Amino acid sequence: MLRLRCLWWTSCSSLHLNRRFLPSPIISSSSFRSKMEAVSYSTQSSTPSKKLLFRQLFEKESSTYTYLLADASHPDKPALLVDPVDKTVDRDLSLVKDLGLKLLYAINTHVHADHVTGSGMIKTKVPGVKSIISKASKASADLHVEAGDKIQFGDLYLEVRATPGHTLGCVTYVTGDDPDQPQPRMAFTGDALLIRGCGRTDFQGGSSEQLYESVHSQIFTLPKDTFIYPAHDYKGFTVSTVGEEVLYNPRLTKDEETFKSIMENLKLSYPKMIDVAVPANMVCGLQDLESKAA
Amino acid sequence: MLRLRCLWWTSCSSLHLNRRFLPSPIISSSSFRSKMEAVSYSTQSSTPSKKLLFRQLFEKESSTYTYLLADASHPDKPALLVDPVDKTVDRDLSLVKDLGLKLLYAINTHVHADHVTGSGMIKTKVPGVKSIISKASKASADLHVEAGDKIQFGDLYLEVRATPGHTLGCVTYVTGDDPDQPQPRMAFTGDALLIRGCGRTDFQGGSSEQLYESVHSQIFTLPKDTFIYPAHDYKGFTVSTVGEEVLYNPRLTKDEETFKSIMENLKLSYPKMIDVAVPANMVCGLQDLESKAA
Repeated sequence: MLRLRCLWWTSCSSLHLNRRFLPSPIISSSSFRSKMEAVSYSTQSSTPSKKLLFRQLFEKESSTYTYLLADASHPDKPALLVDPVDKTVDRDLSLVKDLGLKLLYAINTHVHADHVTGSGMIKTKVPGVKSIISKASKASADLHVEAGDKIQFGDLYLEVRATPGHTLGCVTYVTGDDPDQPQPRMAFTGDALLIRGCGRTDFQGGSSEQLYESVHSQIFTLPKDTFIYPAHDYKGFTVSTVGEEVLYNPRLTKDEETFKSIMENLKLSYPKMIDVAVPANMVCGLQDLESKAA
Repeated sequence: MLRLRCLWWTSCSSLHLNRRFLPSPIISSSSFRSKMEAVSYSTQSSTPSKKLLFRQLFEKESSTYTYLLADASHPDKPALLVDPVDKTVDRDLSLVKDLGLKLLYAINTHVHADHVTGSGMIKTKVPGVKSIISKASKASADLHVEAGDKIQFGDLYLEVRATPGHTLGCVTYVTGDDPDQPQPRMAFTGDALLIRGCGRTDFQGGSSEQLYESVHSQIFTLPKDTFIYPAHDYKGFTVSTVGEEVLYNPRLTKDEETFKSIMENLKLSYPKMIDVAVPANMVCGLQDLESKAA
C-alpha cells in the first residue's frame, strides 16, 4: 500500500476517473485517497481471482492483442479495453454485450504505428466511452494519464507506469498491488516489452537507452510472477512473466551497451502502416472523420 | 468426489498414467484409488490456482491453439501439451525448457484434418514423452484413452470425455472437479465446440446428430464458469465459458433439427490439408518416417 500511495502522491495532477464514482474527471489527491479507502474496505473480504473478468483478443493481420478487463463482481460490470484495433471493434463490442459489461474506457499503451486504434470507432458506437492515452504521447484523447495515475473500473484499477523508449509516450498499465486486486499482477506492456523481445526504437521519439531504463526500472522490478501481456506477438505466445523475461529475454538480459548495439543493428524495414496509422492514432483513429469535419 | 470415482470405476480399462508414479502404465482400479487418496491428501492445503502452470499457444497458418499444462507445485514440474502442431514444436519445446518443465505427454483431441500434429516430432526430440489419443480415433499412439480415463501430471489430472461428431474419435479433456484441482474447470474441446461455433461434421466419421448430443451431454453439463479452450479460433477469440456458449453459440443453442440443417448446408470447401494431414496424424504426424522405415 505504501508504494502505491507514494506513486499517487507524487503524480496525480492528470488523473481521470469514471464520472459515476467521482464528481469530476480531474480529481484532487485528497478526494481520491478517500475514495480508495472506501473501495478497499468494501471489497476486502471478496476473493480477488473471482472479480476480474479477463479476455485476450487477437488481430491476425498486425498480430495485435487487445485486452478486455472488467470488474465482474460489481453490479454494473464496468469494463475497459486496452489497445483495441479498428478492424476488430465489432467483435470486441459484441463480446462486451454478450458478457453484459458496461464499457467505460478505450485505452492505448501508445500511438501505434502498425494498426489503427479502435478507440475512436468505439466512442462513436458506444456513447459515454472515454478514450485514454498518455499525456506524453501528445495524442488526442478524452483523458490523459501520467506515471502513478490509476484508472479505476469498479473496485479494480490499473496503475500507469511510464515506459518510454519504443515511443516517447509509451506507458505500461499494471493491475494494482493491493490485496483485493488480482494476483498475480498483470502488466500490459504495449511494445515496451514483448515476449522474448521488445519494440523497435528507431522512430516516433524512440530511444534504446530510454527503453532499457524503462523496462529495467518499471517492469523488471515488478514481482517475478507478474504476467506480461504485450501489444503483439509474432510467434504465437500469448503471455509471459516478469521472471521469465528477466531470465530469457534475448535483448533485455544483455548489458545496456550490448542492448543499444542490438537495437541499432536490427535493419528493420520502414513500417508499412506508419504513414496511415500514426496520423490516425494521434486523433483516436478518427483521422478521416476529423479531416472531413475540418 | 463421488462422481469422479463413479467415472473411474465404470471405465478404467484403458487408463494410462505416468510410470514414475505408478508401477505399470495399465493401472488397476484399486491401485489408482489408493494413489488418488494419497495425492488428494498431500495437496489439499495448497491454493489450487497456484498449482497449474498454463499457457495457450497459437499457430497462425491453421489458426490452431496448443495448450501447455504443468503442475508447477510438483518438484518435477510434470507437463503435457494438448494438440501440438508440427511447425511450432521447436517453439513449444523451447518454452518447456525455459520453464523448467518435464514433458510427459503429447496429447491430441482428435485426428486433425487441417494441420499435422507435433506429437511424433516431440517424441523424437524428447525421449520418454508418450503420445496420447482416443482409442476410438483408431490412430497410432503410445497410449489410448476412453471416456472416464484420467491423465495424471503431478497432482493434477485431465478427465477424458467422449465428444464424437466432428470425427468419430473426438474427445474433450477437462481438468478435474476435486477441490484441489484448478477452479474454474477448463475444457479442451478440440473441434467439438469452438467459440461461437463448432467443427464441421462432413468427413472422418462426422455426424451432426452425434455432435449435438456430445456437446449437450458432455460439455454443456459442466459448470457454467468452466473455461472453453478450443483447438482453433478464426476471429481472434482465445477463450469462452460454458455459460457463454450455452447462451450465445449460434449453432448449438438451436434445437437439434435446426442444428442438423445448419450443418448440412454449410457448403464448406474440401479441406486443403486433409489428404496430407489425416494419414500423417494417424501415425503421430510421422507418416514419412513410418513409410521410410517400412
